[in-house]
Amino acid sequence: MNSPANITDPLVLFMPSGKRGRFPVGTPVLDAARQLGVYVESVCGGRATCGRCQIEVQEGNFAKHKIVSSNEHISAKGPKEERYERVRGLPEGRRLSCSATIQGDLVIDVPQDTVINAQVVRKAAVDRHIERNPAIQLCYVEVDEPDMHKPLGDLDRLKAMLEKDWGWKDLLIAPHLIPQVQGILRKGNWGVTAAIHRDTDSSRPFIIGLWPDLKNEAYGIACDIGSTTIAMHLVSLLSGRIVASSGTSNPQIRFGEDLMSRVSYVMMNPDGREAMTKAVREAVNTLIGKVCEEGGVDRHDILDSVFVANPIMHHLFLGIDPTELGQAPFALAVSGALQYWAHDIDIEINLGGRVYLLPCIAGHVGADAAGATLSEGPYRQDKMMLLVDVGTNAEIVLGNNKRVVAASSPTGPAFEGAEISSGQRAAPGAIERVRIDPETLEPKYRVIGVDKWSDEEGFEEDAKATGVTGICGSAIIEVVAEMYLSGVISEDGVVDGSLAERSTRIIQNGRTFSYLLRDGEPRITVTQNDVRAIQLAKAALYAGVKLLMEKQGVETVDTIRFAGAFGSFIDPKYAMVLGLIPDCDLSEVKAVGNAAGTGALMALLNRGHRREIEKEVGRIEKIETALEPNFQQLFIDAMALPNKVDPFPKLAEQVKLPPRKVLAEETTGDGAPRRRSREERAARRRG
Amino acid sequence: MNSPANITDPLVLFMPSGKRGRFPVGTPVLDAARQLGVYVESVCGGRATCGRCQIEVQEGNFAKHKIVSSNEHISAKGPKEERYERVRGLPEGRRLSCSATIQGDLVIDVPQDTVINAQVVRKAAVDRHIERNPAIQLCYVEVDEPDMHKPLGDLDRLKAMLEKDWGWKDLLIAPHLIPQVQGILRKGNWGVTAAIHRDTDSSRPFIIGLWPDLKNEAYGIACDIGSTTIAMHLVSLLSGRIVASSGTSNPQIRFGEDLMSRVSYVMMNPDGREAMTKAVREAVNTLIGKVCEEGGVDRHDILDSVFVANPIMHHLFLGIDPTELGQAPFALAVSGALQYWAHDIDIEINLGGRVYLLPCIAGHVGADAAGATLSEGPYRQDKMMLLVDVGTNAEIVLGNNKRVVAASSPTGPAFEGAEISSGQRAAPGAIERVRIDPETLEPKYRVIGVDKWSDEEGFEEDAKATGVTGICGSAIIEVVAEMYLSGVISEDGVVDGSLAERSTRIIQNGRTFSYLLRDGEPRITVTQNDVRAIQLAKAALYAGVKLLMEKQGVETVDTIRFAGAFGSFIDPKYAMVLGLIPDCDLSEVKAVGNAAGTGALMALLNRGHRREIEKEVGRIEKIETALEPNFQQLFIDAMALPNKVDPFPKLAEQVKLPPRKVLAEETTGDGAPRRRSREERAARRRG
Repeated sequence: MNSPANITDPLVLFMPSGKRGRFPVGTPVLDAARQLGVYVESVCGGRATCGRCQIEVQEGNFAKHKIVSSNEHISAKGPKEERYERVRGLPEGRRLSCSATIQGDLVIDVPQDTVINAQVVRKAAVDRHIERNPAIQLCYVEVDEPDMHKPLGDLDRLKAMLEKDWGWKDLLIAPHLIPQVQGILRKGNWGVTAAIHRDTDSSRPFIIGLWPDLKNEAYGIACDIGSTTIAMHLVSLLSGRIVASSGTSNPQIRFGEDLMSRVSYVMMNPDGREAMTKAVREAVNTLIGKVCEEGGVDRHDILDSVFVANPIMHHLFLGIDPTELGQAPFALAVSGALQYWAHDIDIEINLGGRVYLLPCIAGHVGADAAGATLSEGPYRQDKMMLLVDVGTNAEIVLGNNKRVVAASSPTGPAFEGAEISSGQRAAPGAIERVRIDPETLEPKYRVIGVDKWSDEEGFEEDAKATGVTGICGSAIIEVVAEMYLSGVISEDGVVDGSLAERSTRIIQNGRTFSYLLRDGEPRITVTQNDVRAIQLAKAALYAGVKLLMEKQGVETVDTIRFAGAFGSFIDPKYAMVLGLIPDCDLSEVKAVGNAAGTGALMALLNRGHRREIEKEVGRIEKIETALEPNFQQLFIDAMALPNKVDPFPKLAEQVKLPPRKVLAEETTGDGAPRRRSREERAARRRG
Repeated sequence: MNSPANITDPLVLFMPSGKRGRFPVGTPVLDAARQLGVYVESVCGGRATCGRCQIEVQEGNFAKHKIVSSNEHISAKGPKEERYERVRGLPEGRRLSCSATIQGDLVIDVPQDTVINAQVVRKAAVDRHIERNPAIQLCYVEVDEPDMHKPLGDLDRLKAMLEKDWGWKDLLIAPHLIPQVQGILRKGNWGVTAAIHRDTDSSRPFIIGLWPDLKNEAYGIACDIGSTTIAMHLVSLLSGRIVASSGTSNPQIRFGEDLMSRVSYVMMNPDGREAMTKAVREAVNTLIGKVCEEGGVDRHDILDSVFVANPIMHHLFLGIDPTELGQAPFALAVSGALQYWAHDIDIEINLGGRVYLLPCIAGHVGADAAGATLSEGPYRQDKMMLLVDVGTNAEIVLGNNKRVVAASSPTGPAFEGAEISSGQRAAPGAIERVRIDPETLEPKYRVIGVDKWSDEEGFEEDAKATGVTGICGSAIIEVVAEMYLSGVISEDGVVDGSLAERSTRIIQNGRTFSYLLRDGEPRITVTQNDVRAIQLAKAALYAGVKLLMEKQGVETVDTIRFAGAFGSFIDPKYAMVLGLIPDCDLSEVKAVGNAAGTGALMALLNRGHRREIEKEVGRIEKIETALEPNFQQLFIDAMALPNKVDPFPKLAEQVKLPPRKVLAEETTGDGAPRRRSREERAARRRG
C-alpha cells in the first residue's frame, strides 16, 4: 500500500483541494486521500459500515491536468460496499473510498455533504466552502477481549487498539468516562466508537466520548455572544452540514442595555458579575436546546463548541470581572484563545464536550472581531480591506496580506436606534427605508412587515396591522443621508429652517428645526438632536477608520465589509453618503452578515483555522484610538457630511451630492463642528 | 553564562548525584547545577528571596575526583544573599546557589532538606533518600503591567513571563484560575508565584495554582488505600520533608470485611458501588484533614497527590464497578497509570491539585504492588528478590534486573486473625509473641500494651489494664510455628492428641485436639481448625511463590522483602518455619513496612519514578495462579510444615527443626493433606 509510487502509476487528483499524486493500482482511494492530506471522513476505519468516506468520480478529459478520468478507472463494488448499498443506500455515482481502489487515472470529487438522507439544509448566512478538519474525530474500533495472561485493563486495550487502527498515541481520557469504559465495551460486544479530541498538535489527544457499536454522527455549535443577541449554528462535525441556526436575546439586557452599563452594574453590585455570568450561560444553554430541537439532535451528541464575543461579553461569559475593561488601560484578563471542558463553564452538551474561544484582539476588539477577521480574511489577500462591525462599539480591522491593523471606536448606541427620538429596534412597524424628494421634500418610506412603499396605493390599509411605530437603525442612516441629499440639512448637519417656508415637513422645535417623516399616531420626526447623535456616531467610526488608514499609509481602501446585523440592513450607498465609511467603489462594499459567527463556524469545522487566527491575532497591530493625538481632529472633520476634508470621488460618480450649504445652527451644542474654510481644507489635503 | 567551558575552567562536582562539569569563573552555582541536570529547588528564580536553592561547599582534598574544594572557591556573599541571611537566616555553611558563583574547583553538597526552621521531622517508615523531581514546581515571576499599545491579556503576559524566566512553553491553565488571574496579579502588584504541573514530557505544562507575591511552600500527599487501613504521608514538595504520617480504618469495612464480600455487596445492592466510593473518598478527605492538622498545613496548599491501592480498592476509589474483578478473567477496567484533577474524584485539596495513580499490574496485583515494586526495586538489582505483600490476597513479585514476574494468591483472611477462633486485630490485650517449651509444652507470651512476658513476675498485675483478649495475626504465625517446633503438631498440622497424657495444655474438642494458650477469661486456645486455616493460607502463598520461582527457573531466592503491616510484625524465622516463604538466609529476609506507601511517596517526589514504574509494570510478566495446572499440586505440598517436598537447608542451619512426625487426623476435612511416602517425595525432588 505504501510502496513507492512509480511514474507509470495512475495519477489521482482530488477536488476541490486540487491535491494530486500517483498511486499503485489497487490502492484504496481513502488511503490515497490520507497520504495526500486530503480530509475524507471515516468513522468505521475502512469496514464499509459508516458510509462517511463517500466520493464521486468526475468523468471526462481534464486536459489541464492531463487526466482522462472514468468510472472504469475505479474498482467495481466489492461485497462490503454492495452490502452497505443494499442496507443503507448509496446515491447514484457515490462510492465508498475505503473500498473502491484505484485502477487508472482519476479525478475524485470529495463532496462536502456526505450525509445520505440529508435533511433540507437551512440556507443560513453562511454559504462558503469550509474545508473540514475538526478537532473531534469519531473512531470505531474492535477491542481485544480481556485475557488473563495479558491483564491489560479494558481502557488500556481500548487505547492500544486506537493506536493500532487509528494511530492515536499517548491518549488521555476524560475522567468521567473512566468508570464507564468497562460497561460500554461489554455493551458493544467489544466494538465501540471513541470520540477523540485533538486540537493543537502539541496537546495530547483525549478520548472524550465512548459509545457501544458504531456511532455515526457528532455535532458542534458555533456561537456568537453579542451584547444584544446570541446567535448559534448547530452543525454536523462529520459532514459540515448546518443543521439549525437560531438566535436569542442576551438576557443581560436586564442589567444594562449597553456594555458600559453592564460593567457599571458589576461595579455597583457585589453579585453582579456572577448574576450576569449565570444569565448568559443559561441563555446559551436554552439556545442549545432550541437549535437541537430544530435540528432533531440530542444535546449530548454535541461534542465541540466554539464561542466568539466582544471582550466584555467574553469576560462575563467566562466568569471574569470585566471592570478593568471599563477604564484605561482597558486590560483584558485574558486575550489568547482558550480551551475548556464544556462543564467547566456550565455549558450543557456532552459531558466530554469541549469549548474553544477565539482570541481577543484588544481591550475593545474582541473574539468576535477575531471571528470576523478569520471569516473575511483581510490577511489572506492583496486588496486593502476594511472590515467594520458596527455596534455600540465599532470594531474596525484594516489590512491585507502584508499588514493588518485594528481598533475600536466608541460609536455609542445611536446606530441601534437608541438616543434617537423616534428610534426603535428592527421589528414590524419600524420604518426601514426612506426616500425624500429633493424638490417637494416629501418623503416615502417602507415599513417592516408591509410590502408597499408609503406612497403606493393601499399602504395605509396594509400598514394597519403593524402600525408605523418608529425608525429602525438602518433607516436612521437612510433618512439622515436623504435629508442631506435633498438639502434639508447642510453638510454640517444643521436642519435648514428656511425651508419651512416652502414645506410643512420642516417644523420648528424651539430654536431648532425637525423633519416630519410621518404625521400620525405616533408622530415620527427626525430632530436636530437625532441628526447630531448620528453625526457623533458616524464621526467616531470614520475617525477610527481614518486612524487605521493613516497607520497603513493609504488614502483609500479597496474593499469594505460590513459585519453584524446592522451592516446587513443598511444600504452601503447611504452609509457612504453619510461618511460612515471612506470613499470606495460601491460594488466593493458588501454586507457579510454575522461574520463573527461564520468565523466561529470555521474554527469549529477546521482546527487549522484556530491556529490561523491565533497566529494572525498575534500579528495584528492594535491601535488604541484614545491614545492617538490626532483622533480628535479626525473626529471633528468627520462630523460633516460626508466629511469636512476627505473627498468622495467614487461616491460622487454614482450619487449626485448636493452643493455645499453652510448654515449656522441656533444652538451651540457639544460636538458642534469647527468651521474651516475651503482654502484651509484644500491646504490640509495638499500637505 | 553559556559560553563553552574550557579545560582550565573550575571543575564542580555535585553530591549526592555525582554529576560534574567545568564552568567559567563567575557562573552561579544554580546555573551550573541546572546545566548538569542536578535538581536544585528555586521558587524566586534567582532573586535570593525564597531560600530554596541552598547548597553547602564540602571542603577538603577529594583525591578520587582530583578536586581540592574550599569555601574560598566560591564567591563571598553579595548584598542580596546578605539581605536574605539577615531577614530569614541562613544556617552555618549554607549558601544560596543562585547568588554564589564559582571561583574555583568545588564539591557541592545539595542538602535534602533545605527548609530553615524546619519542624522536627517525624521519623516515618521511610528513611530512604528520594531524589526530588516533583511534577509540581513553584515559579515566581514579575509580570509586565498592562499596556494599551500591546494589549496582551493578564494571563497572556503571565504566560509570557513564565516562558521568559522559567522556560515554560505552551502553558495551559486550570479553568478555575482564569477568572482569578487579574485579581491575583493586582494583589501581588504584578509579582506572583505560579504552580506549574508537568508530569509526562509529552503533556503540556499546566498552571494549576497562582498566588500573589512569593509563595514558598507546597505540599503533596502519598496515600495507600488498603482494604483495612488507609495510610497517608503529607510531604513538602519543595524539600521532600515528611510533615506528617497517619492512618485510618477503611470505612468500607462496614460493607464487608474482606474484598470479595465488598464485591458481593456491589453485586447485591444497586447503590453499593456508589456508597463504597463515597465512603472511601470521605475517609481519604478526613485523613487529609488529620495529617494537615498534625503538620500545621492548610489543605489548600496540597497541590499533588499519589494513590496506590489493590485493584478492588483502586476501582472503588475511582468509582468503577469492581464486579469484573470478582470472577474470571478478572478484567481490570483500567490498568495503566491515571491522572486526574483532584476535584474530578472529590478529593479536597487545592482546586488545581492533581492526582496520580500508579498502574495496576494485574487483576489481583494492584497499584499497591506496583508501589511496593517501585519502592523495593527488584528490577534495579542482580539478586533474585521475592517481594511479598501479605493481606487477604497476597501479592507476590519475584525478579531481578533481568526479569520480573508477579502473581497473587488467595491467602484468605486467616493471617489477619479472621477465621481463627481466638483471633483478633492487633490492639492492646492481643497476644503478639509466643514461645512454647518443647519439654513441658508450657507457653509464654507477650501482650500488646504490656512489657513483661507472661512468665515474668508481675505480668498478671500489668496485664489487668488491657486484659489478654486474643491472638493477633503475627502471633498466629508464631504460635503455630512454635507448636510445630515443640512437637504439638505434626508436619501435616495435626495436633498430637497423645500429648494430652503428659500436658494439660492439650485438650480434646470432640474428635480433634486444641492447644490451650491461656486459661482465663477469655480462654485462649489454638484449635485444629485454626491450624488448618493457617496451613491453607500459608500453602496458598507458598504455592504462588513457587509458581513464580518455576517461571524464573530458580530453586531458591536471594533476598525476601515482606511488605505491609503484617510483614512488619511477624518474625521472619517463624514465617519460614511455617513454610510461608521459601528457604533463604534469614539475614536476607526483611520487613519493609508499607512499601506500597513508600512507592507512592517516591512517585510523588519524583516524576521520573512514575515513568520508571509505568515502564516496569509493562514489562512485568503476570502469572494467573488459577490458570497454572501445577498450582494445585504446589498448594498441596505446601500444606505441610514447612513443606512436603521442599528442603529448608538455610533455615535448618539456624533453627532446630523437629523430627518428622506423621499423624492421622481424626476428621477428614477439606484441604486434608494428601499423604505421600518419603520415597515418593524424594523421587519427585530428584525428578
